[in-house]
Amino acid sequence: MNYPLLRTIDSPADLRRLPRTELVKLAGELRAYVLDTLSNSKVGGHLGSNLGTVELTVALHYVFNTPEDRLVWDVGHQTYPHKVLTGRREQLATIRHLGGISGFPRRDESPYDTFGTGHSSTSISAAHGMAMAAKIKGEDRRAVAIIGDGSMTAGMAFEALNNAGVPHGGLLGNMLVILNDNDMSISPPVGALNKYLARLMSGNFYSSAREGAKSVLKNTPLYEFARRFEEHTKGMVVPGTIFEEFGFNYVGPIDGHDLDALIPTLENLRAKKGPQFLHVVTKKGQGYKLAEADPVKYHAAPGKFDPAVGFVKSTTPAKTTFTQIFGEWLCDMAEQDLRLVGITPAMREGSGMVDFHKRFPTRYHDVGIAEQHAVTFAAGLACEGLKPVVAIYSTFLQRAYDQLIHDVALQNLPVVFALDRAGLVGADGATHAGNYDIAFTRCIPNMALLTPADENECRQALFTAYQHKGPVTVRYPRGAGAGVAVEKEMTALAWGKGEIRRESGKPQARSAQEAPRIAILSFGTLLYTAMQAAEQLDATVANMRFVKPLDHAMVAELARTHDAFVTLEDGCVMGGAGSAVMEAMQAAGFNLPVLQLGLPDEYIEHGDVPSLMASLGLDASGIEQSILKRFGARPSLVRPAANQ
Amino acid sequence: MNYPLLRTIDSPADLRRLPRTELVKLAGELRAYVLDTLSNSKVGGHLGSNLGTVELTVALHYVFNTPEDRLVWDVGHQTYPHKVLTGRREQLATIRHLGGISGFPRRDESPYDTFGTGHSSTSISAAHGMAMAAKIKGEDRRAVAIIGDGSMTAGMAFEALNNAGVPHGGLLGNMLVILNDNDMSISPPVGALNKYLARLMSGNFYSSAREGAKSVLKNTPLYEFARRFEEHTKGMVVPGTIFEEFGFNYVGPIDGHDLDALIPTLENLRAKKGPQFLHVVTKKGQGYKLAEADPVKYHAAPGKFDPAVGFVKSTTPAKTTFTQIFGEWLCDMAEQDLRLVGITPAMREGSGMVDFHKRFPTRYHDVGIAEQHAVTFAAGLACEGLKPVVAIYSTFLQRAYDQLIHDVALQNLPVVFALDRAGLVGADGATHAGNYDIAFTRCIPNMALLTPADENECRQALFTAYQHKGPVTVRYPRGAGAGVAVEKEMTALAWGKGEIRRESGKPQARSAQEAPRIAILSFGTLLYTAMQAAEQLDATVANMRFVKPLDHAMVAELARTHDAFVTLEDGCVMGGAGSAVMEAMQAAGFNLPVLQLGLPDEYIEHGDVPSLMASLGLDASGIEQSILKRFGARPSLVRPAANQ
Repeated sequence: MNYPLLRTIDSPADLRRLPRTELVKLAGELRAYVLDTLSNSKVGGHLGSNLGTVELTVALHYVFNTPEDRLVWDVGHQTYPHKVLTGRREQLATIRHLGGISGFPRRDESPYDTFGTGHSSTSISAAHGMAMAAKIKGEDRRAVAIIGDGSMTAGMAFEALNNAGVPHGGLLGNMLVILNDNDMSISPPVGALNKYLARLMSGNFYSSAREGAKSVLKNTPLYEFARRFEEHTKGMVVPGTIFEEFGFNYVGPIDGHDLDALIPTLENLRAKKGPQFLHVVTKKGQGYKLAEADPVKYHAAPGKFDPAVGFVKSTTPAKTTFTQIFGEWLCDMAEQDLRLVGITPAMREGSGMVDFHKRFPTRYHDVGIAEQHAVTFAAGLACEGLKPVVAIYSTFLQRAYDQLIHDVALQNLPVVFALDRAGLVGADGATHAGNYDIAFTRCIPNMALLTPADENECRQALFTAYQHKGPVTVRYPRGAGAGVAVEKEMTALAWGKGEIRRESGKPQARSAQEAPRIAILSFGTLLYTAMQAAEQLDATVANMRFVKPLDHAMVAELARTHDAFVTLEDGCVMGGAGSAVMEAMQAAGFNLPVLQLGLPDEYIEHGDVPSLMASLGLDASGIEQSILKRFGARPSLVRPAANQ
Repeated sequence: MNYPLLRTIDSPADLRRLPRTELVKLAGELRAYVLDTLSNSKVGGHLGSNLGTVELTVALHYVFNTPEDRLVWDVGHQTYPHKVLTGRREQLATIRHLGGISGFPRRDESPYDTFGTGHSSTSISAAHGMAMAAKIKGEDRRAVAIIGDGSMTAGMAFEALNNAGVPHGGLLGNMLVILNDNDMSISPPVGALNKYLARLMSGNFYSSAREGAKSVLKNTPLYEFARRFEEHTKGMVVPGTIFEEFGFNYVGPIDGHDLDALIPTLENLRAKKGPQFLHVVTKKGQGYKLAEADPVKYHAAPGKFDPAVGFVKSTTPAKTTFTQIFGEWLCDMAEQDLRLVGITPAMREGSGMVDFHKRFPTRYHDVGIAEQHAVTFAAGLACEGLKPVVAIYSTFLQRAYDQLIHDVALQNLPVVFALDRAGLVGADGATHAGNYDIAFTRCIPNMALLTPADENECRQALFTAYQHKGPVTVRYPRGAGAGVAVEKEMTALAWGKGEIRRESGKPQARSAQEAPRIAILSFGTLLYTAMQAAEQLDATVANMRFVKPLDHAMVAELARTHDAFVTLEDGCVMGGAGSAVMEAMQAAGFNLPVLQLGLPDEYIEHGDVPSLMASLGLDASGIEQSILKRFGARPSLVRPAANQ
């Protein structure tokens, strides 16, 4: 297919020059182009949501004067059609690849990306800010937030609605919130709001209530009175939607794939002042039958696929991921202990909880995109003697930081946080990076933090955490680890104790002129990389296992017997585990030279993790080089193994 | 007054033995007792909210089988009557004092305090957890969340409502949410929800809409049909409240000071299964005319006062607080720069923004208790070239941590965070401690962090931050500082540069046997304490000013010229500014011994800040002793000043 119409569109201005009659054709090409490009992508990308927003994207850029009018895409993984129409058609093939365009909107990528997103539910706040700025500056632009029904369950969206619908300092922003209602977050939808939206969509609530009330009166003399009364008291006698209660003018639901409905409605809304709300119904995967039929599976493409066949399971057996290790442990633990309750904020699949949900439905809680509630709800369960396990991505725990401190840790409640996607996450990039959790959890009193080094240790660390009588976090990265076989039997790790994995040659065997004896204190899965580097350097390697409580005795012992420390972690160096080692070392009265290796103080772009780690010097040779550069200028440092 | 009835109540069981007819008298005594005790308290406490919950507290303990039934008090500063009725009558006089009972509920203080609170909007999540736990365990207890209308504006409350109203795994908790609607958070109420509640309260919405619809039909044959239809479709034809849309059975509004309304209603609701919602209307300061008339002023008592006269301004001129410094700077800056927008999450008074609100109403935004929205709203404003200043307490910034990382810092947007109440906060205690912000902000890429040492430096630091082209936080403590005169003229501090405030004797003047030459690297207002300690020790003192970007050149220079470092900060040691110094020192190739002084890894209880700081060894003599203990075993360290 060569996309004759789409190829003429290099910017929304080109789009706006098209006659309305051509737009359906354009949308068809755009959908095919996105599907075609993604099916040829090595790294995959969000499929279903992008097929679902094709017509909406066309209509928005057709009606609104972008980029002067601001479009803020919530979450932003549905912006592939937007990127194609705003000058990034040819770059779409590079999306989510190292050096390619981002899978999310980014302000530094295009003036049409007015606000960077990635995490959900930020769009109404941001668009409200933009709308108020226009008012304050006396500019006539519009701000539009496009938000999915899943994102509406986060409290932040509610906070924004509560603010955007009323004047501040006499100013009321001209903004439009478009609820893109596809009855989905990534997992199937949950919560009262979802049921409410379903009622709105089915027409049982809104239209039929209005029409019902009218038809009851139709042949009475009160009809005209009621009609007028309704106009004056909209939302009083016949039910207003909750969006109207928040001060928005609610319109909808309309079919989000019907350009003949979308365009006049948007034109109409663009002409209106104040807060507008449009309820659009779309279908995830629209126009691609396989995706329409299984939106959870087709939420994101895993990599190359044949559109005619769909996603097929790879025949080469995939390595076991940490997510799977967690999922299996959760089921095994739940079988042993009736007190276990598993909680996820809308990440059933991503967190490996599908089996758990199936097997233990009354002890499974998907709370929707509501991390704050997830954590304090867990605290409430723990108060009653239950044993909550909150499965959450590192980056999303940031949403519940106060709840972690104030509701769980301060009360020293036994809640286990299973922190998936710690460290770099690959194609999702900087918005989803799990770089900060070591720094932001270890400063919380009562909080314990484990960093298992491999698959089996992850299972045992989760078991260990579960026995602990206080709050505890177990962090593990996206994907697979070293491939260590998992022991079915669960054995608690010694609490707060690391282990020596490799010992360097004894100091008595060295002369004073020899290279310094180095200890690498490793936290997490970089242990295996550290072991490779250590072979070259004859360094000691400690698998520290616990960031907190840190193994102070081991730190002191290593300080006594070594000349220099190297700390290693797949988290930010600033305030990270390496700093914890320095704090402990100094508190014990030692002051060795320390080289801290970990993630630098910058946002790391998307790309495949091994390449990124290598570029950061966190592969084996990079680690070796860094150590040599800092401690080993003398060639004697590298001693042949035979000398030992 | 000797409180004849109240003195007989040592637990809710005693209360439940009283005849109903005695309860009004008891409530009267309870109100008088709280007012009397607070007016005699040296440290003051929350007055208005506690006078407003007297009858509600009596009714709840009378109707519910506490502590078997769980009461979760949102925020918790309204629990003084609850504490009095649950065995802590005599201890009320010690509330918020060092060693006394807490101003908030605490699980370790009483079995009646089922969930510790302090920050707002956690109660529904916690109570939902408790209610679900009862279901899972097959217990028949109830869980009750009592939440104010101000707290309802936080997204977290919405997340909880969205979950608590629907079944999970087939289980639906038996819980009651009591909305204690006093039309107040601490500042006057804002937002659409508030307007909505006002409509519910005024009856314009709920009763009159229902009754209105009925009266329209009254004399038609459709009346009976409509009545029946309503019963079957409650919330469909006539409007349900938004709480009903969330799955709750809504009852109210009722008068929260009328025990004859409260008790039968609560008895009724206690007998019902599933999620119940009671809308209670109370008056902040009820029964104390002065507080009823000025609820903002009487929100919290400042200390001793004569109830007959009320709060009077102290005649001794108060020291200027950092809050005032901020408020004045904000007005001065706003006068110079039309782009400035000031944002507060419901802390207009506490953050010193009353004047700013008065003088710049269109550039003042109180977003309600909605920290997440506050931060991302600021990001939206910054995208449009405005200059948002978010005034927020350190402890409440925890609520917007993800927004700080994902919406502001990742996009490198110029937003100034004015962080009040950093460090220990005194009588509010551990829930409100601002101990963690250095650790949790400095690990964020792009984020700058300033720690001014005194009043004038605070003003200049705010000015400096405002000029910065990226996100920046300025932290300062509760209360007053060293009393340094403030220069009206604003002068930018050198970016990322500290200053030497005191130099120790030159090393060349020493013999090798002399004590080590010590540099104290101080962050924030402890500088003046450090200066006192340094006089005794002849130590160098650096006022570092910036945690980030840290003055690496100064760290290296001090490392070159000194034998040991002492780092000092009024924040947690774990991951704090001292760790930043160690990171920088090691990165520069130095490895001096370092003593880190700051807040320990534990929750610090309420009490007056000077006593607490002394108990933590953070007064001048404590600092001196710590340094001597670590570095100065040799008496030669303490050299008489004359020797220099």
